[in-house]
Amino acid sequence: MQQILLIGAGKSTAVLIKYLSEKSSEENFTIIVADKDLEVAKKAIKNHQNCLAASFDIFNAESCKKHIAPVDLVISMLPARFHIEIAKTCLHLKKHLVTASYISKEMKALDTEVKKAGLIFMNEIGVDPGIDHMSAMQVIDRIRDKGGKMLMFESFCGGLIAPESDNNLWNYKFTWNPRNVIVAGQGGVAKFIQEGKYKYIPYHRLFRRTEFLDIEGYGRFEAYANRNSLDYRNAYGLQDILTLYRGTMRRVGYSRAWNMFVQLGMTDDSFTMEDSENMTYREFVNSFLPYSPTDSVELKLRHNLKIDQDDIMWEKLMELDLFNNNKKIGIAKATPAQALQKILEEKWSLSSKDKDMIVMYHKFGYELDGKQKQIDSTMVCIGKDQTETAMAKTVGLPVGIAAVKILKKKIKSPGVHLPISKEVYEPILQELQENGIIFKEKQTIYLGYNAIGGVSN
Amino acid sequence: MQQILLIGAGKSTAVLIKYLSEKSSEENFTIIVADKDLEVAKKAIKNHQNCLAASFDIFNAESCKKHIAPVDLVISMLPARFHIEIAKTCLHLKKHLVTASYISKEMKALDTEVKKAGLIFMNEIGVDPGIDHMSAMQVIDRIRDKGGKMLMFESFCGGLIAPESDNNLWNYKFTWNPRNVIVAGQGGVAKFIQEGKYKYIPYHRLFRRTEFLDIEGYGRFEAYANRNSLDYRNAYGLQDILTLYRGTMRRVGYSRAWNMFVQLGMTDDSFTMEDSENMTYREFVNSFLPYSPTDSVELKLRHNLKIDQDDIMWEKLMELDLFNNNKKIGIAKATPAQALQKILEEKWSLSSKDKDMIVMYHKFGYELDGKQKQIDSTMVCIGKDQTETAMAKTVGLPVGIAAVKILKKKIKSPGVHLPISKEVYEPILQELQENGIIFKEKQTIYLGYNAIGGVSN
Repeated sequence: MQQILLIGAGKSTAVLIKYLSEKSSEENFTIIVADKDLEVAKKAIKNHQNCLAASFDIFNAESCKKHIAPVDLVISMLPARFHIEIAKTCLHLKKHLVTASYISKEMKALDTEVKKAGLIFMNEIGVDPGIDHMSAMQVIDRIRDKGGKMLMFESFCGGLIAPESDNNLWNYKFTWNPRNVIVAGQGGVAKFIQEGKYKYIPYHRLFRRTEFLDIEGYGRFEAYANRNSLDYRNAYGLQDILTLYRGTMRRVGYSRAWNMFVQLGMTDDSFTMEDSENMTYREFVNSFLPYSPTDSVELKLRHNLKIDQDDIMWEKLMELDLFNNNKKIGIAKATPAQALQKILEEKWSLSSKDKDMIVMYHKFGYELDGKQKQIDSTMVCIGKDQTETAMAKTVGLPVGIAAVKILKKKIKSPGVHLPISKEVYEPILQELQENGIIFKEKQTIYLGYNAIGGVSN
Repeated sequence: MQQILLIGAGKSTAVLIKYLSEKSSEENFTIIVADKDLEVAKKAIKNHQNCLAASFDIFNAESCKKHIAPVDLVISMLPARFHIEIAKTCLHLKKHLVTASYISKEMKALDTEVKKAGLIFMNEIGVDPGIDHMSAMQVIDRIRDKGGKMLMFESFCGGLIAPESDNNLWNYKFTWNPRNVIVAGQGGVAKFIQEGKYKYIPYHRLFRRTEFLDIEGYGRFEAYANRNSLDYRNAYGLQDILTLYRGTMRRVGYSRAWNMFVQLGMTDDSFTMEDSENMTYREFVNSFLPYSPTDSVELKLRHNLKIDQDDIMWEKLMELDLFNNNKKIGIAKATPAQALQKILEEKWSLSSKDKDMIVMYHKFGYELDGKQKQIDSTMVCIGKDQTETAMAKTVGLPVGIAAVKILKKKIKSPGVHLPISKEVYEPILQELQENGIIFKEKQTIYLGYNAIGGVSN
């Protein structure tokens, strides 16, 4: 009987393990779920059929080999930096590999050897990256197959709180790694192309150059630019496209409010603050404001950011208890980003009944038969509970589907891949649809970017 | 006869060579001016007495040794990164060394060996660092000697255009390395302490948190924070001081206008722009602004920065010809900072009759006999012409004076030093004064920081 080894049994793998288990009887394979903590692995397999738990030490090369040798395919759900060692062992032992992470340079460099060995190393097959690639390429290929020419591709994704659990002024809670939210947009200029013109947005302006997006039944969202839009030109074969823009979705008003933290310097992760352990929330705020022997921290902040007392932005800050002089950061040698995370986690953590939501929005502008046209394609996925979250579902399902299809030779082309070929995306999108991950398309006249108005890019 | 080897005969060494030459007869030494380009060295020594020109290759260890072996003291005016190799050779051959650069970790690490060898490696003995150290420590030591306790030390310095040559709206021209001006403040948060409270200013806010400074006879200046204020606590023995702040001086209005470039992202030096070679000034500006099929670059900029048409800020941009669509950046793979430098150099370069100016301002707050007091100390130096600039004078004189005093054993304490001991600063400040570099002191009541009002820190 064939075997799949799943390495890393964290919270996000619940839907993946469930899916694999459900497929295991008809497709005739077993699953070994391995984690550095055997108890975590045991807990993860629950009473799912055809699943075994194992302990796995990524830092022990012999142990890695021992676990990988008997199986047919490995899924690595470990942090991205660990994939390359597993990939090399898979290559050595001739096993397929599936990950949801971006392809690293080192991973890409294995392509020739992987092809020679007749193996498939499928990466970037979660939600973003993953479902975004597949759903976009399906439409782009369809347009091209008809003889159309791509003019514009804009793509947005967001991990948010579901409408039924959306009960704070920020319309936001941490549904995934909080740290990534705090430092989002840092580490380089946002670069994209619009109507043939290159545009650059420095980090400190990123959250003031948003774009509105409406999704029927879910209302209005906004998006700020991702750093890496132009990287997608080669991957998607869009070298000549006039407009290429990728962004992150939030509820309207989030970015304008988040910008307050950016402006003050609270999202900085590059230096540690003096005596952060004993610093109160109020002192944290004050350290970014001018000294005054008389003025309050509140007034200094309002003046510094030029916000009025009756501005909703002010209410958003109050909701966070930001000026409290009793609550302490309590982290030694904290960066501002770490201190801010502490403050936000107190208010933005999920309560036990909260559900999450994944939203995705693509805009395809194209010319066909001399006419400019546009397709808008949207997907919304709401979590079931705190185990079967929208995030766990949209990451776990494509990973699981890909793994089974590779194992069963439905996906056959060898190499180090991301899921952009028809052979890969067609069957996977089909099965995602059967599982409720559905893209709705709307054909419109060509609106270009900034169709709704508001602050343009 | 004793010999001094001066390595590096760049523009800034004119006053230094003149000073050394003038001293050479009475003090009985000769000067060898060495440069990688013999012609530059020959030109630099002019017909000054007791000077010889030589060629010097820093990358040739044998040549370095050969030049250093016969002399008694070496002055390195090379870029700071080259000092350490020269320092090691000086240590090996038992020669004194003088530089105007910040002490590197590697240089500091030589201290024990330098002491053991009875040598003096004097660093940071230009203007800033240099004259700032000496003039500050003289007052600080005087206050302490009287039994006073330091409460506040603020120190500001600026390299500016002299009032008689100040004829643009920015009240600024490049009197020194333009690149340093473009990237000023980048590379880390500005960190200082005010009334016992640590304050942090992120780069994108730096130019909006200025302080006013008045110098009698020269009008009003402003200052923005330097990055490294807290580094001076240990060096100056100010561990318990409540307020410690260092800043860079500009004419009033410069920072508010410079902030436009910062906000747009034009000072970024971390990425290269697409097709920068053929990009016009107008296209450069537009790449930081939202796309619009209809709106002008001018209006987009005004809206983006929220400046009115009759704002002086707008006039400042117009003066730079920033919206010209014929002038090209003309630099391949330029960063925004490099492109901006190109644009500014066209307008801010010195014309042949322009003079430069160095301004320095220290504020010393202290408690003596139960009373809080303050001393403000200011220095202004105006250049004579484009050879004997204020910069060349304020860097060259302290370097030259220190070199002669070390050579003649007037300064005797061995070690890797910056000029903060009485033995060093007293005779040097005395001789600087005789050469017209004079600090004027004003005793006032304790005003604390932000005495004038305006935007506080």
